[in-house]
Amino acid sequence: MVQGPGVGEDAAILRVGDMLLVTHSDPITGAVERIGWLAVNVNANDVATRGARPRWFLSSILLPESSEEEVVSKICKQIHKAALDLGVAVVGGHSEVTPGLNHPVVVGCMMGLAEDGRYVTTHDVKPGSAIILTKGAGVEGTAILASDRSDVLEKRFSGRFLQRARIYFRRISVVKDAMTAFSVGGVFSMHDPTEGGVAGGLHEMADASGTGFRVESERILVSPITQRICEFFEIDPLQLIGSGALLISADKTLAEEIVRALSCERIEASIIGEFTSKPRERVIGSKAGVKPLPRPISDHLWIALSRDKTWSSLSKAGSTSSVREG
Amino acid sequence: MVQGPGVGEDAAILRVGDMLLVTHSDPITGAVERIGWLAVNVNANDVATRGARPRWFLSSILLPESSEEEVVSKICKQIHKAALDLGVAVVGGHSEVTPGLNHPVVVGCMMGLAEDGRYVTTHDVKPGSAIILTKGAGVEGTAILASDRSDVLEKRFSGRFLQRARIYFRRISVVKDAMTAFSVGGVFSMHDPTEGGVAGGLHEMADASGTGFRVESERILVSPITQRICEFFEIDPLQLIGSGALLISADKTLAEEIVRALSCERIEASIIGEFTSKPRERVIGSKAGVKPLPRPISDHLWIALSRDKTWSSLSKAGSTSSVREG
Repeated sequence: MVQGPGVGEDAAILRVGDMLLVTHSDPITGAVERIGWLAVNVNANDVATRGARPRWFLSSILLPESSEEEVVSKICKQIHKAALDLGVAVVGGHSEVTPGLNHPVVVGCMMGLAEDGRYVTTHDVKPGSAIILTKGAGVEGTAILASDRSDVLEKRFSGRFLQRARIYFRRISVVKDAMTAFSVGGVFSMHDPTEGGVAGGLHEMADASGTGFRVESERILVSPITQRICEFFEIDPLQLIGSGALLISADKTLAEEIVRALSCERIEASIIGEFTSKPRERVIGSKAGVKPLPRPISDHLWIALSRDKTWSSLSKAGSTSSVREG
Repeated sequence: MVQGPGVGEDAAILRVGDMLLVTHSDPITGAVERIGWLAVNVNANDVATRGARPRWFLSSILLPESSEEEVVSKICKQIHKAALDLGVAVVGGHSEVTPGLNHPVVVGCMMGLAEDGRYVTTHDVKPGSAIILTKGAGVEGTAILASDRSDVLEKRFSGRFLQRARIYFRRISVVKDAMTAFSVGGVFSMHDPTEGGVAGGLHEMADASGTGFRVESERILVSPITQRICEFFEIDPLQLIGSGALLISADKTLAEEIVRALSCERIEASIIGEFTSKPRERVIGSKAGVKPLPRPISDHLWIALSRDKTWSSLSKAGSTSSVREG
């Protein structure tokens, strides 16, 4: 074992002869609609953040007793499609009816190879390195809220706007982001922020490597769609579940080249700051000055999901929100 | 991919550089008491039946919302202990509370290496080869029934008898069986019969390889404890869930040596018959003659589990059972 379990470490790395095998297993338990698709992509992300191309996938599909055969069929088709898109082979699987379960669960296990024995870990972040963020904050959260809170969002936003927000699911893979950045060189560490969003991801990388960070608020991509949904629910996009974005610790002399290479692959990316040698320095700068970046206690998704059905930030007395749908 | 999904195929085989990686993933959904221990052992069995020593384990632990912290702790300790006993490294894991689940589920993923590139598959059964069975029929089912149907069994059997039956769980690993047999040589195929018991396992091997088989009833080990419990419930030990036993297709000239090697490791084994070139020939011989070996429709465990609480085969009118507890 080269890399086993650890805080913020996304995947295990195992020595297999001359090769390094990267492997990760995660369940999808809360998303019925795209469950098979997510099982492949979420596990692929954690292998790719090691710098390894995902290659092989195994799944366990657990279904409630009432399940129709078409549910299995749909999940398997999603797995097949997602695997095909990533160039991954589905090498095995198990499906069963599990008494005592009221919704499907898919547990995936992804394996990949660290080519030429090169890989990165979360704790390899270097002080003085540039921090690159791809795609932006709150990608997954935007899609989840547009799907699951349409009850309140459709009072404010058009169907077309919400449809555009829902298809943020398509941005959830960071495999191309990670493979592209890693192929340029100068990458010390990569991490995909999930629960706790970009803020949580930055703290996890700093925790794992004993570093601090300084980031600039204006440089962090937050799409207008994400921005509006977060303003509506009065939540922080930096603390909203963020699968789809990739955080990279990169050599400063190569950071611009990595951003250009990502751009050639049509992946938006920006240099948002740098990691520092002071573990207690975890700050975000803006026009208003420099302040500590909050360490999320729980993901802001849960705040938005628990808002009352009549929730509307505009309806509140004294609201000064300037959000308008364009 | 060297070996992907297929009927009766227990694990996938992947080429990693010069090495062959054997991997398998299965959930444990119905056994709360030993769930962590089973997750390691059941997945290890499927890797070992390829002739590969299990090496690395990943787990996903899903818990109901009401779970106490000690449940996770207990499951993790079981995983640790089982892995330690098998010389397996736990390389990663995930645990979470999963809403909509009313009992714990553990999904394991085991990986191992086919040393020197040698492995067997279920479809490699050779016509004319000897069939070796280790430990005997219904091992797992015996333990499950002694644990879960003590309500009726304790009317007939002593606490000591049932305790001896319950610890049949300790026999569930076939890793040593498989490693020992494979190291002798002359092994064409191995398979661990689970649901459908030894009868189901034989049919699966024959299906996968396009062969038939002839086995002798008297040569199939059925322990006295298993025999008594099966007679009590009026079920067939050969169709009772059989993890713990290993079916081996072996070169006839080496079969006796394999049985001796197993015996040196204190593993009971016997040559129960042979695979034949006639796919339709699937027979069992006894003093009463030769007849087709039933292909289990469903495991006889379910028959026994669904027996009425007042069930007792002796209480039935006209019973001629000669079962007595010794």
